[in-house]
Amino acid sequence: MARADGRRPDQLRPVTITRNWLAHAEGSVLVEFGETKVLCAATVEAGVPRWRKGSGLGWVTAEYAMLPRSTNTRSDRESVRGKIGGRTHEISRLIGRSLRACVDYKALGENSVVLDCDVLQADGGTRTAAITGAYVALADAIAWMRAKKMCPGNPLVTSVAAVSVGVVGSAPMLDLCYVEDVKAETDMNVVMTGKGDFVEVQGTAEGAPFDRAALDGLLDLAAAGCAELTRLQTEALA
Amino acid sequence: MARADGRRPDQLRPVTITRNWLAHAEGSVLVEFGETKVLCAATVEAGVPRWRKGSGLGWVTAEYAMLPRSTNTRSDRESVRGKIGGRTHEISRLIGRSLRACVDYKALGENSVVLDCDVLQADGGTRTAAITGAYVALADAIAWMRAKKMCPGNPLVTSVAAVSVGVVGSAPMLDLCYVEDVKAETDMNVVMTGKGDFVEVQGTAEGAPFDRAALDGLLDLAAAGCAELTRLQTEALA
Amino acid sequence: MARADGRRPDQLRPVTITRNWLAHAEGSVLVEFGETKVLCAATVEAGVPRWRKGSGLGWVTAEYAMLPRSTNTRSDRESVRGKIGGRTHEISRLIGRSLRACVDYKALGENSVVLDCDVLQADGGTRTAAITGAYVALADAIAWMRAKKMCPGNPLVTSVAAVSVGVVGSAPMLDLCYVEDVKAETDMNVVMTGKGDFVEVQGTAEGAPFDRAALDGLLDLAAAGCAELTRLQTEALA
Amino acid sequence: MARADGRRPDQLRPVTITRNWLAHAEGSVLVEFGETKVLCAATVEAGVPRWRKGSGLGWVTAEYAMLPRSTNTRSDRESVRGKIGGRTHEISRLIGRSLRACVDYKALGENSVVLDCDVLQADGGTRTAAITGAYVALADAIAWMRAKKMCPGNPLVTSVAAVSVGVVGSAPMLDLCYVEDVKAETDMNVVMTGKGDFVEVQGTAEGAPFDRAALDGLLDLAAAGCAELTRLQTEALA
Amino acid sequence: MARADGRRPDQLRPVTITRNWLAHAEGSVLVEFGETKVLCAATVEAGVPRWRKGSGLGWVTAEYAMLPRSTNTRSDRESVRGKIGGRTHEISRLIGRSLRACVDYKALGENSVVLDCDVLQADGGTRTAAITGAYVALADAIAWMRAKKMCPGNPLVTSVAAVSVGVVGSAPMLDLCYVEDVKAETDMNVVMTGKGDFVEVQGTAEGAPFDRAALDGLLDLAAAGCAELTRLQTEALA
Amino acid sequence: MARADGRRPDQLRPVTITRNWLAHAEGSVLVEFGETKVLCAATVEAGVPRWRKGSGLGWVTAEYAMLPRSTNTRSDRESVRGKIGGRTHEISRLIGRSLRACVDYKALGENSVVLDCDVLQADGGTRTAAITGAYVALADAIAWMRAKKMCPGNPLVTSVAAVSVGVVGSAPMLDLCYVEDVKAETDMNVVMTGKGDFVEVQGTAEGAPFDRAALDGLLDLAAAGCAELTRLQTEALA
Repeated sequence: MARADGRRPDQLRPVTITRNWLAHAEGSVLVEFGETKVLCAATVEAGVPRWRKGSGLGWVTAEYAMLPRSTNTRSDRESVRGKIGGRTHEISRLIGRSLRACVDYKALGENSVVLDCDVLQADGGTRTAAITGAYVALADAIAWMRAKKMCPGNPLVTSVAAVSVGVVGSAPMLDLCYVEDVKAETDMNVVMTGKGDFVEVQGTAEGAPFDRAALDGLLDLAAAGCAELTRLQTEALA
Repeated sequence: MARADGRRPDQLRPVTITRNWLAHAEGSVLVEFGETKVLCAATVEAGVPRWRKGSGLGWVTAEYAMLPRSTNTRSDRESVRGKIGGRTHEISRLIGRSLRACVDYKALGENSVVLDCDVLQADGGTRTAAITGAYVALADAIAWMRAKKMCPGNPLVTSVAAVSVGVVGSAPMLDLCYVEDVKAETDMNVVMTGKGDFVEVQGTAEGAPFDRAALDGLLDLAAAGCAELTRLQTEALA
Repeated sequence: MARADGRRPDQLRPVTITRNWLAHAEGSVLVEFGETKVLCAATVEAGVPRWRKGSGLGWVTAEYAMLPRSTNTRSDRESVRGKIGGRTHEISRLIGRSLRACVDYKALGENSVVLDCDVLQADGGTRTAAITGAYVALADAIAWMRAKKMCPGNPLVTSVAAVSVGVVGSAPMLDLCYVEDVKAETDMNVVMTGKGDFVEVQGTAEGAPFDRAALDGLLDLAAAGCAELTRLQTEALA
Repeated sequence: MARADGRRPDQLRPVTITRNWLAHAEGSVLVEFGETKVLCAATVEAGVPRWRKGSGLGWVTAEYAMLPRSTNTRSDRESVRGKIGGRTHEISRLIGRSLRACVDYKALGENSVVLDCDVLQADGGTRTAAITGAYVALADAIAWMRAKKMCPGNPLVTSVAAVSVGVVGSAPMLDLCYVEDVKAETDMNVVMTGKGDFVEVQGTAEGAPFDRAALDGLLDLAAAGCAELTRLQTEALA
Repeated sequence: MARADGRRPDQLRPVTITRNWLAHAEGSVLVEFGETKVLCAATVEAGVPRWRKGSGLGWVTAEYAMLPRSTNTRSDRESVRGKIGGRTHEISRLIGRSLRACVDYKALGENSVVLDCDVLQADGGTRTAAITGAYVALADAIAWMRAKKMCPGNPLVTSVAAVSVGVVGSAPMLDLCYVEDVKAETDMNVVMTGKGDFVEVQGTAEGAPFDRAALDGLLDLAAAGCAELTRLQTEALA
Repeated sequence: MARADGRRPDQLRPVTITRNWLAHAEGSVLVEFGETKVLCAATVEAGVPRWRKGSGLGWVTAEYAMLPRSTNTRSDRESVRGKIGGRTHEISRLIGRSLRACVDYKALGENSVVLDCDVLQADGGTRTAAITGAYVALADAIAWMRAKKMCPGNPLVTSVAAVSVGVVGSAPMLDLCYVEDVKAETDMNVVMTGKGDFVEVQGTAEGAPFDRAALDGLLDLAAAGCAELTRLQTEALA
């Protein structure tokens, strides 16, 4: 079963992580998974949302969006339509939850980090690229905070990376590009810590329902992919 | 590890499925998982959304909402706020995807079924109760369509049921009620067909990330729970 | 002039008032006028809206909504459309005004009660059923508050009930069901206190304008209907 | 009981009806009830809303709004807030229903008239002034249509006028100005045809509930007021 | 090159400025440039927007809107559409900036003036009429404030007037009416102080781009027009 | 008067124009004016908006937006706020008008080009950079269309470039960066064709009003700046 771009089934696309892509943000990364390009900006804000005030705990949140012409055909802006679509909401929430998994709120103090993940170009796997890049932007933002003595401790307890896996033409494959994603019978996004534990597992039967063996195979692939992404994050931050 | 209501870790809450709860809908079910009560209404509409016209294929979609006082403290109406929240969007999309997994679009013909799942009372597991009840409402609506000779074939290829599982105080537990859900370190919603395959697996580390063994334990619990719910659906439809 | 369901012109549909239908709300009622079913939930909130702070006075407000498939054909959710329709606004305001008529704000203290009236099934008269049921939910909520010593006095100065009347085929009729409502030349909603005074009179010529004699006849019918509903409310609260 | 401006209890404020106040509209009226000034514009549009197409019947609708500084203190624009308030909705609907009562849809043919009633200055009774003025604008628009041979018959079957009445300090009074309206225990808006029949009766107990005798007294006052307004409309159109 | 209404190319339409057109506003003007009629209301509010609190400085802002039937064909209300269009936003911002040019914030103290400019009838040049009229309303509002001793000094440092100019059929013309505006190749709005300086210059090539000589000719015309408007404002305020 | 970055008053910042920055768009440019970076994507769509159908003429439109962290402090997303701000509207409209000035609609045929200008990083002059870059993206998109034989003729009649000028500390300066823009007394954006004619002139007195001599000086600076930008566009397209 040959892949669209000649990769092995268990092979990631070329991944590049460019730090400090923006001048103003406390942390920023242009992350590329093949043709997928996501700009991740981490903004540090003193203070936390109202419902969390006085708790001594920090907060991390995320917003995901796609530029109108990041995709093959242009889509309308959500600002013009006047509302955010379900997919955008769902992915923003996923990114926020994922990044919160590597943060010690107490060590962060009553500060917030907002992670803006804007897809400049989309070719499948935008949410997993966003999580992988946002972690690096978050790490830089936290380093900036620590240099400013804003945090009572070290808020970063582990790292977080994400990858998509799927069954395409009965074969399990790692890091699907768009043409593979469209054909996938099962599609799974897996978020893992640098220690190899799961933060989020989201598997969906796009075509036929899948059995336990297929699920196990996909989880194995994803674990290997996340380990490789963790290595690339570490390298980038070195 | 005793549960809030004295159940065994692998035990469902009392489940009741009341068909034909509404007079007007083509299929309707009041489903109860303990104190959680969801009203599921299936509406049959001739025709399909614009993007699907002329395909010969049908469509199934879902909308989920909570009454303002279904919860312990009142929450504002989304109609009053003027926009649908991320959680609502996410769950509506999950229910729609789950129900589409049991439908043969070709056999449905160019007809649509809308599944409205309104939570009258919430005590954890509203989305899984909604999916479980919506399947029965959908089955009734499809029976109604077939009696009217609207469908070229039998659109129902399998059944679908869903249950939540989670790790509470280190112990894996089935069908979490609200007080358990709040304390859960890991929370997973699993949707399965009547044949025992997976339609959707969504696991989230609310507290500490989880390892493969914990994931496997939760999947085992969920599979047993879904099998029991499938049995109750079959009984209700008998 | 026979009625659709064989009732006498001056006869109410079977009315049932089920208290404590919900587990969480401070007062809750499922009220049924024939096939019309409205779930009324009363929520007690300490404090009042900003414009009323420091006045020593309480506040009562209401929100009305219909489930999408409460009606014969499905209607879109107002949350999905992103705005509340004129009819919804109008009825919410009517219910709020009506219930405020039986409350002594001073005796309530600076507390609020929100009355959520959600139509689960509609067969005409949803707003009058809502008012009639909401009164019982409000009475229960106020009893709950008094048990908690939240109120400086007894805020309930009278009771409130409502009924629709109309001219159908030249004949005045009480408590119109949907098929009668559609054919009515004149449609009137009347809200009265338990003492027999008027709180609100809203009469509309749907077909031909009506004269004073017709108006008088309808008011007589309504007064008798409200008296009967007051009796049923008293019974339910006993 | 002296009135704020020295009027007798059964006396209207000075009413002026200025036709053709706008250059573009097919009918337009600046109507003044004392200090209340409403600009009513009637727009003729060929065709009817989608749901009425092919019926051979016309349609009349209305929109009401207040300029931000029509009132004593400035209120925010509904366009800026992004949504129409309940009161605006309610009054727009009332004006539309009222004007439809004097129109024969069949004689109108498949044409629409939109009545825009914009309050330039408010001093109580804006909705009743709007209805009274909108009738004259509608009559002019229909004359314009008939001159253009757009209508199969004469669509104007009667005239329509409206006035507010209320109980202020126990005394029934006609055509309340703002300071009276604020003090009114009971507030009623009555819409009547030129023939003396009722189109709409909306009475509200703002303070204490009211009895049948009070209601009867208010209806008498309103009938006399509407008859006088009908005379002024006829004069203006002569 | 004859003009639609027989004016000379450098001639304004008849301009009338009627002060105190509204009873409630602190300053109000009905300004007419030929058939264009704009109602300008100035509202004084103690305090400033949040971002300016504690600065000791005042604020002036403006909102522009058109009545639905101010134009030749009816346009939908922005409140009904639920959002403000780009043109409205642009003109509101222009009016606000223009009026702020004649105000000394320090002398105004921490007070705000809101200028509502509502177009009752449109025949070209609504934004320039609005600015010209709003200045007079602002001057009246400031006089009102000074009479109340609300201002630490005299906030009015100069006057402001505005006019449109354009190239129609190769000829530069002053104060375009609608039929001229539609045909204009170049369209320019110029805002000037009473001292003859520029506050805002907005020139747009509607048809062919324009050269420096054309620009210079239009600026000369506009300067003469603004000087004449300044004279009329002074007269009106005398 | 030294500039923030040591430039001469009549000197542009370093300008780079990178074509084909995106894989999917028919034309795309990353344009940089110093630290200001705008991504311009041109999308070709067969057909025109409804109001233009059947005219035989094409259409060009634009949308401008800023990423939340393109600026020094993060700003909320307009999609999250649910409405587009006045500034965004104003700039989108300016870009659209400017680009339409270089297009022959007839030669374009009934096709549309949408220009999306997304500010990735802002340091003053984002709208002028956007126009300058969008022209190049448009030229590429039109070349793509002509290669596909979509256009009846050559739609590109000239080129378009834009630059900001302003008076800072009494000195006229070209191409203001953010710190200069904030201090500018007068701020002007000028759009010119490659032939040296004006498309749009927008000058605003931010501080003191300006006289004709100052205006003339700014126009001279802008003309020279636009000529240099035209040269860079030509080079980029070579």
